[in-house]
Amino acid sequence: MEAYQPGFQPKDGGYLKLNTNENPYPPAPGAVTAVREAGVDSIRLYPDPQSVRLREVIGEVYGVPVERIIAGNGSDELLAMALRCFAGEGDRVAFPAPSYSLFGVLARIQGAKPEEYELDADFGLPEEFFSARAAIKLVASPNSPTGTVYSIEIIQRLLEETEGVVLVDEAYVDFAEESCLPLLLDFPNLIVTRTCSKSYSLAGLRVGYGFASEEIITGLMKVKDSYNLNAVSAAAAAAALADRDYAREITSRIVIERERLAESLAGLGFKISPSGANFLLCRPPGGRAEDLYRKLFDRKILVRWFDTPRLREFIRISIGTPEEMDILTEAVREILE
Amino acid sequence: MEAYQPGFQPKDGGYLKLNTNENPYPPAPGAVTAVREAGVDSIRLYPDPQSVRLREVIGEVYGVPVERIIAGNGSDELLAMALRCFAGEGDRVAFPAPSYSLFGVLARIQGAKPEEYELDADFGLPEEFFSARAAIKLVASPNSPTGTVYSIEIIQRLLEETEGVVLVDEAYVDFAEESCLPLLLDFPNLIVTRTCSKSYSLAGLRVGYGFASEEIITGLMKVKDSYNLNAVSAAAAAAALADRDYAREITSRIVIERERLAESLAGLGFKISPSGANFLLCRPPGGRAEDLYRKLFDRKILVRWFDTPRLREFIRISIGTPEEMDILTEAVREILE
Repeated sequence: MEAYQPGFQPKDGGYLKLNTNENPYPPAPGAVTAVREAGVDSIRLYPDPQSVRLREVIGEVYGVPVERIIAGNGSDELLAMALRCFAGEGDRVAFPAPSYSLFGVLARIQGAKPEEYELDADFGLPEEFFSARAAIKLVASPNSPTGTVYSIEIIQRLLEETEGVVLVDEAYVDFAEESCLPLLLDFPNLIVTRTCSKSYSLAGLRVGYGFASEEIITGLMKVKDSYNLNAVSAAAAAAALADRDYAREITSRIVIERERLAESLAGLGFKISPSGANFLLCRPPGGRAEDLYRKLFDRKILVRWFDTPRLREFIRISIGTPEEMDILTEAVREILE
Repeated sequence: MEAYQPGFQPKDGGYLKLNTNENPYPPAPGAVTAVREAGVDSIRLYPDPQSVRLREVIGEVYGVPVERIIAGNGSDELLAMALRCFAGEGDRVAFPAPSYSLFGVLARIQGAKPEEYELDADFGLPEEFFSARAAIKLVASPNSPTGTVYSIEIIQRLLEETEGVVLVDEAYVDFAEESCLPLLLDFPNLIVTRTCSKSYSLAGLRVGYGFASEEIITGLMKVKDSYNLNAVSAAAAAAALADRDYAREITSRIVIERERLAESLAGLGFKISPSGANFLLCRPPGGRAEDLYRKLFDRKILVRWFDTPRLREFIRISIGTPEEMDILTEAVREILE
């Protein structure tokens, strides 16, 4: 069995990191304060096993009752819990490809049967995925690494045509224009997961959260590690989520920058996949993505290149600050010349 | 399926918490500093998925190569990983009872068959446990909630007579006189887990670590969440583990206090189970444990009482500071009068 391969994390500095979709802006000031002023007792004593305080903040922000919210050690833990709950040995786990490569890894860990459904030419969900029979279907929207947003109508159709559970991983949704969260009210088979790693700049602290029916949340709570979320991360996440102005500000800067980068790269002959995330998947002129990836690496600019038949001609670029994007664009221009 | 039930965590202050085996002393100063001076980038960027720096410190402290060490989000996560690796659906998972109640919960989460082996009258491992056939055997030494230490000879015999994997959970071992860690060299089927929650006062940060053969560690790494340990907790744990003098000092205070408490309670007619942990399991006069538990609770003193046939006549008391133990002893004396 193959483990999930995260993007390259350089040990030394001096790299421009545009390969793992981190946020270029610091976390909300209150989140940093929550870490730096952590009380000795919050370090010494067991944390709240249910992360109630954090879930209350999430509930207020999204207008969802606490009983329909779960918090986890990154949204990866929530995905793992969902598969532990709903994918028994030999059960089918359906998901599109290319998508988040952890989906298949988690299915195999459960001894379940991963079933990939190839996205269509525009990275849309294929017809067969809607009608597929599976214990659980997993979709990332916006999708990684393509950036594709699946509209609320598409997700609704998927829910209507699926008997099992549908998990929509909305890790990148704050950079998009719509979320499927409103569908929670009508579909008891929907799980929506989110993360504080992208739009809240807390990747190092590992905080994810999820929404579902009370029944599903109760089930997920049973398969989580007892004290799955540490006290310091929970406090920082609560502070970050509560600061709506700051979140809006850094998110909107990234969205603006994404559109500016898309335009610059299009001007250099790139084909850009429409993105609702904090990254762009794009095909350089001639599809010479590996070459570009390596030449950027030589200049200590890290982007992501996936060596698979479908993605080999693309690179994925995380959106940074305007200055970082200028450096990238200039480097790309020089390499292509 | 029943979830694991952690001890009561009061939301408001004013309680003397002797129910979940936390450490009464603050974490090593360097660990607190690691949290309070966390860099913004360690919060913003993904952590090292392999926790190499922390594993290097653990390796130096214990003289074990980094390749034989894994770090996790609490030792609970390591137990869960081990079961994910070694207990398939329907496989037997053997463990003594009474012991850490999470063992059975984790086996059931995997769809495996939990098989309990009743400890003998002195809480020793029963003969049938040695000869039992199981995909994996789990033993806590010192055992919780009894405090019983299983000697290195006993663990060696268990390893010799077991074909499957043996996981020894040494969460409390720093308060005991021996560890089975030296057996790692001879037994490729041994996993030893440890935690920073007890002897290092870091329960709130969720850090555990484990030792095993390189082959087993490689397997565990494949089933862990990609970024399972957050950057701040990893840095704090590394600092705590590196400060040997501080760890020795607070551990030895707790051991001294444990022996003093055992003597006081014996003087009040308690029967004390010999303990190598930071708690005592003891039977009050007449076995009226529930009554004592409730009367202590009324005085805002929390101890643990397990409502099971085997443990109903006992209470488990976490060891605190000398002052805390004086308060407890005085309260017990008054209640019994």
